[in-house]
Amino acid sequence: MNLRHAALAAGLLMATPSLADTHIDNIEGVSVMRDGTIDRFAGMVVDEDGRISELLDFGDRPTREIDYRIDGEGRTVVPGFVDGHLHLMELGLGTLVLDLSETNSLDEALSRIAAYAAAYPDRPWIIGRGWNQERWGLGRFPTAAELDEVVSDRPVWLQRVDGHAGWANTRALEAGGVTASTTDPEGGRIERLPGSRNPSGVLVDAAMPLIDDVVPPPLPEDRDLALHNAQNLLLRNGITAVADMGTSVEDWMTIRRAGDAGRLRVRVMSYADSVDTMLLIGGPAPTQWLYDDRLRLNGVKLYLDGALGSRGALLNADYEDDHGNRGLPLLSGTQLRNLMSRAALDRFQVAVHAIGDAANREALYAIEELSEDYSGDRRWRIEHAQIVDPADLVRFGQHGIIASMQPVHQTSDMMMAEARLGEDRLGGAYAWRSILEAGGHLAFGTDAPVEPVDPLAGLAVAISRTNAEGEPFGGWRPEETISREQALAAYTAGAAYAGFAEGRFGRLAEGERADFVMLSADPLMANADQIRDIEVLETWIAGQRVYDHELE
Amino acid sequence: MNLRHAALAAGLLMATPSLADTHIDNIEGVSVMRDGTIDRFAGMVVDEDGRISELLDFGDRPTREIDYRIDGEGRTVVPGFVDGHLHLMELGLGTLVLDLSETNSLDEALSRIAAYAAAYPDRPWIIGRGWNQERWGLGRFPTAAELDEVVSDRPVWLQRVDGHAGWANTRALEAGGVTASTTDPEGGRIERLPGSRNPSGVLVDAAMPLIDDVVPPPLPEDRDLALHNAQNLLLRNGITAVADMGTSVEDWMTIRRAGDAGRLRVRVMSYADSVDTMLLIGGPAPTQWLYDDRLRLNGVKLYLDGALGSRGALLNADYEDDHGNRGLPLLSGTQLRNLMSRAALDRFQVAVHAIGDAANREALYAIEELSEDYSGDRRWRIEHAQIVDPADLVRFGQHGIIASMQPVHQTSDMMMAEARLGEDRLGGAYAWRSILEAGGHLAFGTDAPVEPVDPLAGLAVAISRTNAEGEPFGGWRPEETISREQALAAYTAGAAYAGFAEGRFGRLAEGERADFVMLSADPLMANADQIRDIEVLETWIAGQRVYDHELE
Repeated sequence: MNLRHAALAAGLLMATPSLADTHIDNIEGVSVMRDGTIDRFAGMVVDEDGRISELLDFGDRPTREIDYRIDGEGRTVVPGFVDGHLHLMELGLGTLVLDLSETNSLDEALSRIAAYAAAYPDRPWIIGRGWNQERWGLGRFPTAAELDEVVSDRPVWLQRVDGHAGWANTRALEAGGVTASTTDPEGGRIERLPGSRNPSGVLVDAAMPLIDDVVPPPLPEDRDLALHNAQNLLLRNGITAVADMGTSVEDWMTIRRAGDAGRLRVRVMSYADSVDTMLLIGGPAPTQWLYDDRLRLNGVKLYLDGALGSRGALLNADYEDDHGNRGLPLLSGTQLRNLMSRAALDRFQVAVHAIGDAANREALYAIEELSEDYSGDRRWRIEHAQIVDPADLVRFGQHGIIASMQPVHQTSDMMMAEARLGEDRLGGAYAWRSILEAGGHLAFGTDAPVEPVDPLAGLAVAISRTNAEGEPFGGWRPEETISREQALAAYTAGAAYAGFAEGRFGRLAEGERADFVMLSADPLMANADQIRDIEVLETWIAGQRVYDHELE
Repeated sequence: MNLRHAALAAGLLMATPSLADTHIDNIEGVSVMRDGTIDRFAGMVVDEDGRISELLDFGDRPTREIDYRIDGEGRTVVPGFVDGHLHLMELGLGTLVLDLSETNSLDEALSRIAAYAAAYPDRPWIIGRGWNQERWGLGRFPTAAELDEVVSDRPVWLQRVDGHAGWANTRALEAGGVTASTTDPEGGRIERLPGSRNPSGVLVDAAMPLIDDVVPPPLPEDRDLALHNAQNLLLRNGITAVADMGTSVEDWMTIRRAGDAGRLRVRVMSYADSVDTMLLIGGPAPTQWLYDDRLRLNGVKLYLDGALGSRGALLNADYEDDHGNRGLPLLSGTQLRNLMSRAALDRFQVAVHAIGDAANREALYAIEELSEDYSGDRRWRIEHAQIVDPADLVRFGQHGIIASMQPVHQTSDMMMAEARLGEDRLGGAYAWRSILEAGGHLAFGTDAPVEPVDPLAGLAVAISRTNAEGEPFGGWRPEETISREQALAAYTAGAAYAGFAEGRFGRLAEGERADFVMLSADPLMANADQIRDIEVLETWIAGQRVYDHELE
């Protein structure tokens, strides 16, 4: 190599976003293997590509020459959390709407709405959520007329905190064609003014689509902003990689725009929202890893049933609180197998949403059958796997199945699950330990924005089966708790493995990307309450600091 | 920089696909500016990024140290042709179907069909084109029964050479639901067996969609192969960059797969097939240049009218050969302006297909009106601009309009144009010189696969207005011929400028990508016949040889 080349090469290196060799020193490093085995270390060396070249014990010196040294100040360092199941763009789009969840009176809400409308004069609709007339002490639903007083120039549409009602102004009612002569749709209700058929402004449940369906889709620039905001939320919570469940073509284009512009920081393992989308994007095979291991289309997300709350989950027997109802299949057994085959044929990965025990059985049986034709390392995923017949748990240990579960659902849903199923049918509910003991692979996620973006809350639930209030005392069906190490593994190496990303990220190990978080305490030395209080101090991806709590 | 860095940097450089500094020596280099000014040079130096760092005169030595030297053996070197208007995926998909255009008898065709079916047992349909019963001396259309003799296990559907008829076997007739009771659609004819209503197997014109519409879409792997084949065709013809007119979402995904895998060699300036596709891909703005200047979504292609052949082109007066008909607008004036506005709002480029004089006037007026709101460097494109009212020609010199024209259409269409319009209305037909003299920007293309992928044929037509047989003697309306230099400019620098690519490619100049072709003779020193005979010997993109005629 001549000198000119060397000079040119220096320019190349400086132009790359990565640092040169960096020694991150004076840390309490912890990483876990998928089986929960822990590694502890006191420092690591990160190379120019953002990969870990060396882990160091206390007192060790790096074997290669170092350009930069970072003092970790004795902080706990764990692998960046890998969120095995969330909805990236929905999380981001949620940040763009007006949040009324902290308002304590109708007047406060109205003034927030007025201020928001003034701040965004170009938005054709004002969209919001989170209001709660109970919290306001109002004793009744709010009205369109009250909304009209603060915004009358464009439609306003605000979802109630539970998502089961929407509050519209007159312009929104007009846009949705909701009038005195509109009849209540099945399963829905149009609230009416006293002594009149005139709509009052609130639409309940199945009446909500009357307006939802006329809300204009987000603008492209809103999508880009949404992805930006979603990434910030994730990084603030220590999440450095996600499995995006149900990527649409629009979502994919948005993610690629970010990747092309160098604005994709969080790693995304994508599961298309349909086989058509999967084939459109991937063509004859899953995509390669793009943008230095920051994006890959792995396969497809299929929906086999609905949720417990709406009694859409498929059960082996009647709902305890709705006799004669066993839920509604979203795919027939044949449809499920056909779609799974189409994906597996070209080695796309299949993730099947299954919540009820009948749905889980159907998914397990389908995997059993398809595994004959589609052998090898397929990593069939079952998403949620919430209610499993205890007799079926053993099947999670076969064919390399991945149980992609979200611990916080257990505490959010436990009372409802008891009502829906009765005590006796919950032997395989949120059965993390049983699945692990059966030999299944566990991947944890938040399911954001359905649940908060908070992997530490998930860890706390996983080891305690208690909610933030510590209830129920001793834990709900505590025989299914797992160890701290197992829980951390499911939120890091396990979720990475579930997306074919092992060896790239998910552990702090030589050759993997240096994605890590600095925490205010060690979650492997803390109880559930303490884990909930742990703060994410810094988040690093590929050896670069992408979040610092002090800069917020 | 320490030694370890230097070693590592050497590794990086070797891993890049480009050569190190290369001196291409002993060439007869020619490049043209957009105004037709020519540069001649005897050598060039290409850097590691595939850009030209230096042009050398005879006897000059490179100012920088050289790693490789290539002997050009005195060949003519011109910039890689930039095809200003073609249909990339259609060109490629056309290579995947059975070509019967060289068959000289029904028997020969049948044996070709049988061999093709045997070679592709997995193709669910056998699709082909190019048959001509006149060439076969058959004296009648072929029949389904004759096709059934060679392929009866799956549908066969073969387009006639002129695209105005299709030949189906029984399976294809069944798939299309074509039976004795099917009536002829308006504008189409189902050929019947003698003395019967039973379909004979050939469908004419508007009857063809009965089967076209049930042909399965290409498989993703077919799309990837199609793009590969299209690139090979282009490189063999010396084309190193193209404007893809009407990129669908599927097309875009296919091109990106190639780009991601390093298989995108030809540079693609993309114009989406609709405003929706444009917004889906680009989001809030045209994409950036991707893959080292190999792909950019510039904007959108809009269709204002149809073609002359089918009398769909919009005329200011009746068709000479169809009184009462002035063509059919595909967009109203308001629709056109709305779509142009939506694109221009976010600085997407607009390319309007306009063939008839009324369509060109409409496009020119729309540009005039929109230029007030959307000022600056917009490069409004009019695609084809075939028949322009002479009074409107001057408008091509305003608002930076680009006339994106395909010279070969002039010789293909001249007889038809006379029939459709009559002699007196052809004063602004294919009016290259008048448009240049008015100050318009000219970009040339092939319109492949509508016309052959042959820019040299286009150059020959541009300077002569005669076809390959030298007809008509002296040229058709020869006052509109342009100079060799102007024609080469329109096929290189002009077409690059039309896609906002000046400074990146289209010329052989310092700082531009080293995209060039070695030709068997200098087209600037040749007459039209000689230009048609010029061979493309080698094609280079970014300083790398991507086609060599000796390796074919």
